[in-house]
Amino acid sequence: MTNKKPLILITNDDGAHAPGLRKLIFLMKPLGDVVVIASEHVMSGMAHAVTIQTPLRLKLVKEEPGYKEYITNGTPSDNVKLGKHRVLERKPDLLVSGINHGSNASINIIYSGTMGAVLEGTIDGIPGIGFSLLDYSHEADFSHVDDYILKITKKVLSEGMPSDIGLNVNIPKISDQPLKGIKVSKQAKARWVEDFDSRFDPYGRNYLWMKGEFVNGDPNKDTDQKALEENYVSVVPVHVDFTAHHYIEKLKFD
Amino acid sequence: MTNKKPLILITNDDGAHAPGLRKLIFLMKPLGDVVVIASEHVMSGMAHAVTIQTPLRLKLVKEEPGYKEYITNGTPSDNVKLGKHRVLERKPDLLVSGINHGSNASINIIYSGTMGAVLEGTIDGIPGIGFSLLDYSHEADFSHVDDYILKITKKVLSEGMPSDIGLNVNIPKISDQPLKGIKVSKQAKARWVEDFDSRFDPYGRNYLWMKGEFVNGDPNKDTDQKALEENYVSVVPVHVDFTAHHYIEKLKFD
Repeated sequence: MTNKKPLILITNDDGAHAPGLRKLIFLMKPLGDVVVIASEHVMSGMAHAVTIQTPLRLKLVKEEPGYKEYITNGTPSDNVKLGKHRVLERKPDLLVSGINHGSNASINIIYSGTMGAVLEGTIDGIPGIGFSLLDYSHEADFSHVDDYILKITKKVLSEGMPSDIGLNVNIPKISDQPLKGIKVSKQAKARWVEDFDSRFDPYGRNYLWMKGEFVNGDPNKDTDQKALEENYVSVVPVHVDFTAHHYIEKLKFD
Repeated sequence: MTNKKPLILITNDDGAHAPGLRKLIFLMKPLGDVVVIASEHVMSGMAHAVTIQTPLRLKLVKEEPGYKEYITNGTPSDNVKLGKHRVLERKPDLLVSGINHGSNASINIIYSGTMGAVLEGTIDGIPGIGFSLLDYSHEADFSHVDDYILKITKKVLSEGMPSDIGLNVNIPKISDQPLKGIKVSKQAKARWVEDFDSRFDPYGRNYLWMKGEFVNGDPNKDTDQKALEENYVSVVPVHVDFTAHHYIEKLKFD
């Protein structure tokens, strides 16, 4: 690989065989040298989990000029750490994660392996973008996403971003209406209200499947959820500061 | 259980047998009706991961007046969801998580199952506190923590907190110097610089152990890391808004 072309690291959380990952690889290849480090298995819902109880395995599965593809037994955050410290010869110019099958807007970001990877990159100042499509299906139609993904990616590649910021990009599911454009927005204060399906295994032991209903109680107009409802692509700049700064002054122990 | 006493939900990420969990149970029992939902296995580093690929199992292992203890095969976030939607008859008055064996200050919060549980509670407006001791050892000495944990817990129980805020409390390891008090602080911009130990299994296959060095490059005086270095208990109010609000206005697509 040469230093003249941008170095792009790709990962995801739907596993190495997910169509969304393949689409993202296809879109990124013309833009630079591409290294893919994907989890062998589905890591959906793994958030920012890292593997510290068990060892990691890393396997090169494909190599051609300007392209390398690895699979691991780790999480998306592990993949970025492996990229940063083990695989890549230099800091990548861009980290892209996805395309996730399903929304990572609003509260979904906290459970998201796709965005966990992007946030992991921001910790080391790697510009990162997570792409998600609002369609959970393995057969999701990605045919309307190209222009938006390329526009956002090229902007970040050419202009950069502050060192601790990543982008959470969510794209509406395809419909008979064309997408209206891009809206920079804020994470909506929505939440999942869970329920548990109670079942019994063949040995008579109880087990539970988590299921849930997504509830958006955020009335604000400038949220990602609102943008998506109106058929815009939502872009939220994100970082990993959990501090509730507005509450610092109010909290006193004496 | 009666509604007269506060209802306190306890979880952790070091597994049901961790001494830190036992200490927290011991401290909480006099303050209210206590329900423990702990992971059977160690969930350290699981962040906000949730179990959606496999079913959950929930087992009542101990019951006495004002006290119930369950174990699960899930993550700390799963445990809170099980508490909210399956186990508890009403919304708890307080969620406490820990006492974690090891720091969850600064960037550690993003990998932390202990704090993942607290943040999960904040999504539903449950006041939550994560307690961590800066000692990774299973034999960690918790003898200096009681007064601080009780002071912080009683304050939250009596005064409450805004509905989307939790507290990330970190306590210095015991030393010959007494703790200096409590400092309300901000999450330091520190990071882990990872390395991977490369080894070969008995079958000649390569595997990697993640290891790392914690690097605090944050020069600010008001951080959790700084407070801990000065032998204060650090308290950071936290929430789950990842939006980088200061960057919203600067990000334009046209």
